[in-house]
Amino acid sequence: MARAPQYEWMVPRSWYNIVPDLPKPLPPYLKPNGEPVAPHEFEILFAKELVRQEFSKDRWIQIPTEVRDVYLIWRPTPLLRARRLEALLKTPARIYYKFEGVSPPGSHKPNTAVAQLYYVSREGVQRVTTETGAGQWGSSVAFAASLFGVKATVYMVRASYMQKPYRRVLMELWGAEVVPSPSDRTEAGRKYLAEDPSHPGSLGIAISEAVEDAVRSGAKYVLGSVLNHVLIHQTVIGLEALEQIRYFGDYPDYVVGACGGGSSFSGLFWPFYYEKRAGRAEKDVKFLAVEPAAVPTLTRGEYLYDFGDTAGLTPLIKMHTVGHTYKPPPIHAGGLRYHGCAPTLSLLVEEGEVGAAAYRQTEVFEVARLFAAAEGVVPAPESAHAVKAAVELALKAKREGTPVTILFNMSGHGLLDLSAYEEYLRGAMADAVPTAEELAAHIARARALTPSSGLRG
Amino acid sequence: MARAPQYEWMVPRSWYNIVPDLPKPLPPYLKPNGEPVAPHEFEILFAKELVRQEFSKDRWIQIPTEVRDVYLIWRPTPLLRARRLEALLKTPARIYYKFEGVSPPGSHKPNTAVAQLYYVSREGVQRVTTETGAGQWGSSVAFAASLFGVKATVYMVRASYMQKPYRRVLMELWGAEVVPSPSDRTEAGRKYLAEDPSHPGSLGIAISEAVEDAVRSGAKYVLGSVLNHVLIHQTVIGLEALEQIRYFGDYPDYVVGACGGGSSFSGLFWPFYYEKRAGRAEKDVKFLAVEPAAVPTLTRGEYLYDFGDTAGLTPLIKMHTVGHTYKPPPIHAGGLRYHGCAPTLSLLVEEGEVGAAAYRQTEVFEVARLFAAAEGVVPAPESAHAVKAAVELALKAKREGTPVTILFNMSGHGLLDLSAYEEYLRGAMADAVPTAEELAAHIARARALTPSSGLRG
Repeated sequence: MARAPQYEWMVPRSWYNIVPDLPKPLPPYLKPNGEPVAPHEFEILFAKELVRQEFSKDRWIQIPTEVRDVYLIWRPTPLLRARRLEALLKTPARIYYKFEGVSPPGSHKPNTAVAQLYYVSREGVQRVTTETGAGQWGSSVAFAASLFGVKATVYMVRASYMQKPYRRVLMELWGAEVVPSPSDRTEAGRKYLAEDPSHPGSLGIAISEAVEDAVRSGAKYVLGSVLNHVLIHQTVIGLEALEQIRYFGDYPDYVVGACGGGSSFSGLFWPFYYEKRAGRAEKDVKFLAVEPAAVPTLTRGEYLYDFGDTAGLTPLIKMHTVGHTYKPPPIHAGGLRYHGCAPTLSLLVEEGEVGAAAYRQTEVFEVARLFAAAEGVVPAPESAHAVKAAVELALKAKREGTPVTILFNMSGHGLLDLSAYEEYLRGAMADAVPTAEELAAHIARARALTPSSGLRG
Repeated sequence: MARAPQYEWMVPRSWYNIVPDLPKPLPPYLKPNGEPVAPHEFEILFAKELVRQEFSKDRWIQIPTEVRDVYLIWRPTPLLRARRLEALLKTPARIYYKFEGVSPPGSHKPNTAVAQLYYVSREGVQRVTTETGAGQWGSSVAFAASLFGVKATVYMVRASYMQKPYRRVLMELWGAEVVPSPSDRTEAGRKYLAEDPSHPGSLGIAISEAVEDAVRSGAKYVLGSVLNHVLIHQTVIGLEALEQIRYFGDYPDYVVGACGGGSSFSGLFWPFYYEKRAGRAEKDVKFLAVEPAAVPTLTRGEYLYDFGDTAGLTPLIKMHTVGHTYKPPPIHAGGLRYHGCAPTLSLLVEEGEVGAAAYRQTEVFEVARLFAAAEGVVPAPESAHAVKAAVELALKAKREGTPVTILFNMSGHGLLDLSAYEEYLRGAMADAVPTAEELAAHIARARALTPSSGLRG
C-alpha cells in the first residue's frame, strides 16, 4: 500500500449502496417508448461490473484491493473543525468539514474515476471516453487512467479548452488525449462544426461525442455523477466521516453538501442516512442539498422523467429536473451546471427525507472568501455552495441559541479556479437566475416526455 | 484543535534545532566591516522571539499551541511509498516521499510562515512585509497573516505579477496587499522606476523594497528560507517522517531534497541527522541536496562570505554561493533561483556530511512527468529536482542490485505551475547553464567581500 500503515485501517473496505434502504423502490430507467432499460443494454457503454453495481440491491460492495491501494495515496481525507469560522460568526454551532481537495486532481471525483478505470481495465478494455467542462471530471479520469494503463479520450467543451488551459495541461500530463468539442471525430461533432466552424461547444455536445466515440469504437464510456454506481463509490467520504466525527466526540445535526449531479453530497450523507434508518444515529440528523439559484433543480424543478443529457441520447431518468433543454447560465461552479439530479437523491427529496436550498453566485463567493480568510482553505466554487449553507445554519443556530453540529462536504479546493475569485474580487461577477416563465417552458418540454405506457410504480 | 484527534498525536510538539549538533560552530553573520552582527540588531527587522531562535543553541524549541493548532489543518502530511514508480523503474529500491503539497497554499512554506506570523502577532505587530517571486512564499505569508489577523504587504516581482496572476489572486483572497515591484512606495523602488517605468523587477529589488518598507514603517519583515529560525520551523517535516517511515518497518539509506535557500530539505533531513549523530539511526543514512544546474550553488559555487540578497542590504553570510551578482536564468523552479544557501547546510556540505547534485531543467521535467503518470501526484518544479535525484539513485540501485531505501521531500504540488508543464509538453523548454567564466567572475566579486579583520573561526 502507498500510505503509512497507521492510517490504513481508517479507509473503508466496502462501499455503501443506499438502494436497499430507500423508502420506495427506485423508478426504472426507461426507453422513450416507456420500456425499462435492461441491464445488459447498459453494457454497450459501461463495464459489466459497473452495470452490476448500477442495478445492485446489495447494501455493501467490497472495494477491490487495487482500488483501495490507490485511495491510500490521499485517503483518509481530513475531517476538520472550522473553529476560526465559528469564532468569526460568534455562533454556538460546531462546524466540521470533510476535505476532499487533498486528492491529486483536487476533488472527490477520483473516488469513482479510480473504481471505474479499475473495472474497465480488468475487463480488458484499452480505452475510455468521457466529456468534461472546466476539467474536474476529465482530469480525474486522466489521473485514474494513467494509474491503470488505460488510454483516455476526453471531449472538452471548446470554450473551456481555449479559455481554461490548465486543467487541459493536467489531463495531458497524465497522458490523456484532450479533444476540443465539437470535433470532426464524430457525426455529432461534425454536424455542429458544419453549422459553426468555431462552435464554442457545450457539455451536452461533448457527452454526445464521447458516447458516440465509445459505441463506434468499442471503447467504454465513464461518467462522473448521477448514476447509482458512481454515487456508491463516493461513499468512502461519508464512511470515513462517520468514524472521524466520533473521534471528536460529536455527531452531526445537519449533513450538508453541494448538489449538481449529486455525487459528492450523496457520498457524504448516504452512510449517515443508513445509520438513521438502522436506528443507530445518535441524533435526528437532517440532510441538506445545496444548489446554485442559476440551476434550481431541486428547489424549482419537478420530479419527472427526463433525459440525462442535453441531446436526448440517454435513457429517461426519473429525477428532479429543470428540463434537459434548459441552458444554465455560465456560473463558475461548472460542476453544478446540470439540469437534473441523481435519481436516488431526487427520490429522497421527493419523500421529504432530504431538504434543499439554493443560493446566488455572488453570495456564495462572498462566503467562500470569508471561509478562505478564516480557515485558510480555498473552496472550489461548487463546494462553496455547501459552505454558504453551513454558514446560514450556523447563523440560525446563533439566533436561536442552539449549539447544533453541522457537517459539510468541502468537495474540492479552488486553486484551479482563481480566475473566478479574481472576477469576484474585482466586483465583476454576475448573478443570473432563470425567470418563472423560462423554467416553466423547459419543464413542460420534459413533462411531455413522460411515456404514457410501461411505467412502473 | 482543527483535526480529528486520532491524527493529532503524530504532529510534533517541538521543533529541532541542528545548531548544537553541527560538527563545527556556525560562522557568525558579519557586517561589511567584519564585525559580527549582534542579535538585537536583527530585531529591527524580525520579531524578538524569532531572533532568539535564530541564535539559539537549544536542541528543542517548543511549538506554541496556537501554531500547532494551525498545523493541524493539514498536518501530519502523508508519507507515501511510490510503488508504481518502483515497478516502472524495475528497481529493487524502495522509494518514499513526504508530501507537503497538502497544505492550503500547496507547499511546505506555511510551516514557517505560520510560526513567524504567530510570534509577530503576539508581539503586537500589526503588519508584515515580504517579497515573492512567483508567489509560493507570498501566498503562505498571506495565508498565515489572515489566520492571525495581521496585515501583509507582499512585494511581488512585476514580471510575475503581470504574467502569473493566480498566486496574486490567492494572496488577495487571503487579504494581503500585493504590490508590483519595483513600486513607488520605496526609495529603492522609485530609483528603478526612474530608470525604466516598466521595469520587470527582480527578487533582489523586491527584497530591498520589503526591507525598506519594514524599517521605515515599524512593520516586521518575514523571510522564507536561509536563516536558522526559518529552517527550525520546517523540521516538523522530518520529525513526522521519522515516525512514519518506521510504521512501514523501514529506514532510509538516502534522504533527498531540492535545495534553493535550503529550508524544505533541511526540514526533512535535520531530524535524521540528529539520529545519526546521536547513534540512533538504524542505517548509515546519507543526505543529498539537489539543485538546478542553472544555479549550481553547492556543486559549482564556493564556501564564502556573501550578501544574502542581491542589493547588498543584508549582513554577510558564510555560505556556498555563486555570487550575489549572479542573475539566475528564468527557470520555472522559482524557489531554487537563489545565489546562496542556508549557512547550516553550507557548513554540512563543506564538511562532507551532505552531498550535492545538480540537474538541468528539461531532465527534471521529464522525470516529473514520469512521476505524475506513475503516482498521480504532480510535483512542483522545485520538488521535481528531488524526484529526479531519487530516480537516479533508484536506477543506480538497480544496476548494483542493492535494495536501498530512498526518502525524498515532495515539497509542493505543481497545480499552480501547469503553464511550465505546458511549455515542457510543447517541447519549448530551454536549458540554460552558466559558463565557467561567468561563474568565476561572480564568485570572484563575492570573494572580494570577505572582511580582512574580525573573522572568527
